[in-house]
Amino acid sequence: MIAIYPGTFDPLTNGHLDIIKRAAKLFPNLLVAVAESSSKKPLFSLSSRTQMVQASILEANLTNVSVEGFNHLLVDLAKEKQAYAIIRGLRVVSDFEYELQMGYANASLEPNLEMIYFMPSLENAFISSSIVRSILEHQGKISHLLPQSVLKLIQKEGFICM
Amino acid sequence: MIAIYPGTFDPLTNGHLDIIKRAAKLFPNLLVAVAESSSKKPLFSLSSRTQMVQASILEANLTNVSVEGFNHLLVDLAKEKQAYAIIRGLRVVSDFEYELQMGYANASLEPNLEMIYFMPSLENAFISSSIVRSILEHQGKISHLLPQSVLKLIQKEGFICM
Amino acid sequence: MIAIYPGTFDPLTNGHLDIIKRAAKLFPNLLVAVAESSSKKPLFSLSSRTQMVQASILEANLTNVSVEGFNHLLVDLAKEKQAYAIIRGLRVVSDFEYELQMGYANASLEPNLEMIYFMPSLENAFISSSIVRSILEHQGKISHLLPQSVLKLIQKEGFICM
Amino acid sequence: MIAIYPGTFDPLTNGHLDIIKRAAKLFPNLLVAVAESSSKKPLFSLSSRTQMVQASILEANLTNVSVEGFNHLLVDLAKEKQAYAIIRGLRVVSDFEYELQMGYANASLEPNLEMIYFMPSLENAFISSSIVRSILEHQGKISHLLPQSVLKLIQKEGFICM
Amino acid sequence: MIAIYPGTFDPLTNGHLDIIKRAAKLFPNLLVAVAESSSKKPLFSLSSRTQMVQASILEANLTNVSVEGFNHLLVDLAKEKQAYAIIRGLRVVSDFEYELQMGYANASLEPNLEMIYFMPSLENAFISSSIVRSILEHQGKISHLLPQSVLKLIQKEGFICM
Amino acid sequence: MIAIYPGTFDPLTNGHLDIIKRAAKLFPNLLVAVAESSSKKPLFSLSSRTQMVQASILEANLTNVSVEGFNHLLVDLAKEKQAYAIIRGLRVVSDFEYELQMGYANASLEPNLEMIYFMPSLENAFISSSIVRSILEHQGKISHLLPQSVLKLIQKEGFICM
Repeated sequence: MIAIYPGTFDPLTNGHLDIIKRAAKLFPNLLVAVAESSSKKPLFSLSSRTQMVQASILEANLTNVSVEGFNHLLVDLAKEKQAYAIIRGLRVVSDFEYELQMGYANASLEPNLEMIYFMPSLENAFISSSIVRSILEHQGKISHLLPQSVLKLIQKEGFICM
Repeated sequence: MIAIYPGTFDPLTNGHLDIIKRAAKLFPNLLVAVAESSSKKPLFSLSSRTQMVQASILEANLTNVSVEGFNHLLVDLAKEKQAYAIIRGLRVVSDFEYELQMGYANASLEPNLEMIYFMPSLENAFISSSIVRSILEHQGKISHLLPQSVLKLIQKEGFICM
Repeated sequence: MIAIYPGTFDPLTNGHLDIIKRAAKLFPNLLVAVAESSSKKPLFSLSSRTQMVQASILEANLTNVSVEGFNHLLVDLAKEKQAYAIIRGLRVVSDFEYELQMGYANASLEPNLEMIYFMPSLENAFISSSIVRSILEHQGKISHLLPQSVLKLIQKEGFICM
Repeated sequence: MIAIYPGTFDPLTNGHLDIIKRAAKLFPNLLVAVAESSSKKPLFSLSSRTQMVQASILEANLTNVSVEGFNHLLVDLAKEKQAYAIIRGLRVVSDFEYELQMGYANASLEPNLEMIYFMPSLENAFISSSIVRSILEHQGKISHLLPQSVLKLIQKEGFICM
Repeated sequence: MIAIYPGTFDPLTNGHLDIIKRAAKLFPNLLVAVAESSSKKPLFSLSSRTQMVQASILEANLTNVSVEGFNHLLVDLAKEKQAYAIIRGLRVVSDFEYELQMGYANASLEPNLEMIYFMPSLENAFISSSIVRSILEHQGKISHLLPQSVLKLIQKEGFICM
Repeated sequence: MIAIYPGTFDPLTNGHLDIIKRAAKLFPNLLVAVAESSSKKPLFSLSSRTQMVQASILEANLTNVSVEGFNHLLVDLAKEKQAYAIIRGLRVVSDFEYELQMGYANASLEPNLEMIYFMPSLENAFISSSIVRSILEHQGKISHLLPQSVLKLIQKEGFICM
């Protein structure tokens, strides 16, 4: 049974990794799908973001998790991979309504695709990629918000695309 | 792997059955746990509500789902049953914040217990037990909001406790 | 064309009267329907609450507005009166989701009944009956929250039912 | 009595047409006002968006509805047209607070202009133009989200402006 | 300068104590005002709840904080005490809109009374008295949710009023 | 004791000035910190926005308030200024969740920095800079939304940067 955890992961945070670990316990096969999201003008390139996910999976020793970039409709990716479910994290501070809207839009396109939401642990419930980017932009401390392996990648010269 | 879907089910609605069906596809063993909830002064007795769940499971032909009443703390029930996860439905119109608060309270008591949320289909997203009770009180039409088997039970004389 | 503005009006506030005035400009016939709501255990009797509405209509000189108590399902009242629409006010601080849930429950029972929401003016957007009752209970000032005629009724001995 | 239903309609969806139909039953004259919204960088040109509204009105056979582009303040358009009310749809998943803020901003500029909100039917309550644009960008299925006439226009070569 | 932190404190939690500590750093005089709230039918008597606050103040060694029960309107208490501000905690999971409604109701009665909101630390942001009562009712673990001194009081025989 | 009231103030509104006045009563030293926010592409330059704050402070005769532009992390500014607290206004229509997320992000970087929220008066609770910019763009009336001194600055030729 394959589940897909989609996101932009710009960058991957401890909050994302928390959800990956939870989903990986429940599903024999978890695909972390990194959206190109060019319209959002990500800070990190698709390739950098995919590397981050890969590095975190290794760091967390998750053998049933794989990663892939994608640039098509989520429901089309799900069909192609014969996925059973889409995984999303419910942040305390999040656009819950947006999640539901996306969920119902997906359901209108592919009624058999399950939407499943996990609750991260409390200390991760406030971390968002945009907060991390904003702290990063001003050279603030981000080491408590990101997996070690992601932090190392970010500190490598030339890693940020703009 | 056991998952528990707790609720008061006063009465069980199409929305609840939708969640039961989704969870039953993912978990080999699903326990629908009917809370006594005496402080809420339910319209239906615990025994009547357990019967409703039983009847819906039979109607939907779900062989890996069982039902049980309970009157202790949810995390204690989960420990006793060695449950892996607690299942909740995300209604569009719902107290999302209340769900999170209960989730974090549970996590503070039992960090290893997973909270997992399913999205019902759109036509069930607005049904709540309290709406059903309110229509029932005024002899309105409820047949489109409940499983057939629950409807039959409710129409039996003497079934409503007050 | 008849529109119905339902509520418990326990008591009628400046916020309610604001909505009545707006709806009365748009609809040739507006029926203010006072719900018995015995399960809410209102502070004022149905008869007292109907009197309040009547007095406010007179005070505001609204000749196309009538008032009636009711104790059945709102959609049944609407059918009986051949009403075109149900009117609701959108308070800034309100249970917007509850409004939608009631709206969709009504739509599931009577698809042709229109739900129409009016926006009160800002100074009335925070007034609720429960705030008024709470101030009243402690003998605080409520004269800026209620129509004059309602205030006079409340100050009459023996008007509050409990 | 003239009412104005303003929006960007980028593109017009079944949700918009639902609101147009409801408002057209209540108001003898309904003007659908297409905002230029150049700061939002719409996917479709103002002229294309006006065409879509026109085509939907024809498809739905609504004889008391007209359409017009505009690029000034909504309250100024309302004054110019001597409009009685501004119409808005309340989507389940929507920025309800944003609606209120705009409403109170309008009221601060033109206290006599009524803001009136309609509730779309449930199956249209989740459709938004941004969801449609996002599916469109990835060549997904949108035929269940748009009026037939709008779909035809979109499929014409060269219709999308960027 | 006197500030008042009002509440029902049924029972006082770590979340409440967090707010008391923060407010006590800013205001030379902080009065914790325990509302009788008889309509809420508290689990603990007013005297027991006042004792809890007193015990926590001692435990936390806060010398500029006092406690008092009250049963009148908050704005009247504030006037009597010549208070400058009312303090409230902003829980993540809370009725933010209810806070604003109460705030504006207070402002309509006493425009010079300041409403000031503090943010508790993350680990306290989910604790509520009702969660504590619900765990208590089922003999669950509450020691991580309450100050030690409050815990001791609760464990004394005969302390809970019902 | 220094408190910092940070914002983009693009432009400063009556709502902002309301918060400045309230905070200036409580704190002996209030620093209004104007964020460069170049990623938001402000309508007014940092220098123009700082001038607006300066002019409003003068107009309101607030002698314990100063203003400064900044372009680093808020917690770093707070450390540099040895600030005790960050001040924020709670608009009725606002991204309350965003405020909390920023607050917890700040707390994760600097646990001793207090976040304190003030409630503006009702008539200012709906004013936002983006509404003002939108009305300004279409030459609408903004004089009831801004301090007189800010209005004068805006009306000077060449003041708007784009």
